[in-house]
Amino acid sequence: MGSGLSVNKSQAATISLEAQTFLRKLRHVPFAHLIGSFLTSPTQIHQFRATFAEKQATVEKELIEKYNISVTAIDIDGVPILILEPPFIKPENESKVLLNIHGGAFCLGNSRDRTGLLMATEMGIHIYSIEYTLSPEVQYPTARDECLKVYRHLVKQFDARNILGMSSSSGGQLMCSMLLCAQKEGLPMLARQYLCTPALDLAGYGDSMVFNDARDVMPVSLLVGMVQQNYQGDSDSKDPLYSPLYSEYTKNFPPTIITVGTRDCMLSTGVRTYWKMRKGGVSVELLVSEGMWHGFNWEETVPEAVEVRAVVREFLSQP
Amino acid sequence: MGSGLSVNKSQAATISLEAQTFLRKLRHVPFAHLIGSFLTSPTQIHQFRATFAEKQATVEKELIEKYNISVTAIDIDGVPILILEPPFIKPENESKVLLNIHGGAFCLGNSRDRTGLLMATEMGIHIYSIEYTLSPEVQYPTARDECLKVYRHLVKQFDARNILGMSSSSGGQLMCSMLLCAQKEGLPMLARQYLCTPALDLAGYGDSMVFNDARDVMPVSLLVGMVQQNYQGDSDSKDPLYSPLYSEYTKNFPPTIITVGTRDCMLSTGVRTYWKMRKGGVSVELLVSEGMWHGFNWEETVPEAVEVRAVVREFLSQP
Repeated sequence: MGSGLSVNKSQAATISLEAQTFLRKLRHVPFAHLIGSFLTSPTQIHQFRATFAEKQATVEKELIEKYNISVTAIDIDGVPILILEPPFIKPENESKVLLNIHGGAFCLGNSRDRTGLLMATEMGIHIYSIEYTLSPEVQYPTARDECLKVYRHLVKQFDARNILGMSSSSGGQLMCSMLLCAQKEGLPMLARQYLCTPALDLAGYGDSMVFNDARDVMPVSLLVGMVQQNYQGDSDSKDPLYSPLYSEYTKNFPPTIITVGTRDCMLSTGVRTYWKMRKGGVSVELLVSEGMWHGFNWEETVPEAVEVRAVVREFLSQP
Repeated sequence: MGSGLSVNKSQAATISLEAQTFLRKLRHVPFAHLIGSFLTSPTQIHQFRATFAEKQATVEKELIEKYNISVTAIDIDGVPILILEPPFIKPENESKVLLNIHGGAFCLGNSRDRTGLLMATEMGIHIYSIEYTLSPEVQYPTARDECLKVYRHLVKQFDARNILGMSSSSGGQLMCSMLLCAQKEGLPMLARQYLCTPALDLAGYGDSMVFNDARDVMPVSLLVGMVQQNYQGDSDSKDPLYSPLYSEYTKNFPPTIITVGTRDCMLSTGVRTYWKMRKGGVSVELLVSEGMWHGFNWEETVPEAVEVRAVVREFLSQP
């Protein structure tokens, strides 16, 4: 195994002790650039998924118990949903719902992951978290269409102005592709959304995809391997609904807050999304955090993550 | 000489052709990490300054002629100032003045540099550009105090609400240190300011000071060498007026827009400044540009630079 990510004196000086510890403890898959494609191939991905799920399950269980979160499975038009409900719903959020699409390179993760659990607790809001079908069991656009089914239902059940969105990494692709489809259908747009280090360019381009490859929590070769071998199918990498960074955005698109870190391989995607949306007239905000990695936001106690989550909640709570 | 900065296919896909050409043509001083300290030592810095000035003089002359900018030397309380005046002043800017503090690691550059010339032309505004004394001729805080003298005069001559600020790199240190001193003196704050890739942490800390060292237009060893050997003197690196990132900011501090790029060694400083000011209640905006380097904003025709300058002008023009 590798020996933790490099954090020298100049880098340590500008991040929290908790973040330093996290990075120094992290172990990359050895020789990921050589064997990444094999590890993430359709024959091997189930093993990869199981290992990932085992690690996450402990965190999920702890959060559910610690915060006494009620987890209810429902079904919307054939798509499984988990409703995450903290013991205390803030009065101003009683009629609201936060739609969550989890990350995991389309191949890993589940709707009970820490992202929704932490957000439900800290924001005091109901979360509808979509259990979309993972790849390689299905390929694009099946999961996006499942999300769209759910969205069509939710805008009938709730006033769209009471729906908020959140998504992480590959979940951002599903969310934005879904919203763009919904927009074409003439459906009303949800009120506001949070894109956590969104994977909106599945062509894998960008400055930070290169310079942060070996510095981020997961080598880019593994991310690219998972997406291209299991999810992409026959899609064109730059199809504007497959890689929503290449879509055109208009003022009608929901106000969006994007978060990334300087060690994040998707820093560039966040930056490019910000400019693309801004040029289209979308009300968009980009938060960059010093020395932080892909998905750092979901570490419960790392101060930089706590800080960013507070700003995101404030953004989502605006009228 | 080196062979241009690396721009691979994934990085080229997300920046303009003009930016690619700029980066590929660039030549670093060879073995800068070995001889940087020598090249920037007080005995050698004058040669370094002369070489830099010669290159810049051509660009400056071209801009002045092309845009027919009038350049007038005045003196405010013993400090030389250049007034840069484009042929057309926008009606809404007639009573306004834009105070410019140029960059150059405190050792290089002059008040006629391209930053003020471009801004005067594109914004249609009078610029007062300070010809502060460079280092090693003087050390901190002499140049800052010269700027403060000018500021004291300007707030008497103009309504502070009609004064805007702009500064680049080390000029940002002078500007922020000056504003913090002015605030302590009870002077009114200027209306809005633009910090272009500001050097507000002269301790040289930060994630991007490490990962962008060999990727940016100037190796970090040269920047650090110039500052530490010629400007710092006996100052503590983390003195809050020497490294204004370590100051506390309050709501009264002028609304600020900061620009950096992902290839910029001062990306982290921009990010940290944004968070520090935001926490203090300052109205602050951070613009990060994909694949861009330290000071890219001042390339007249690079599309990313043109785009950012437009946003900055819009910010400075707000009431």
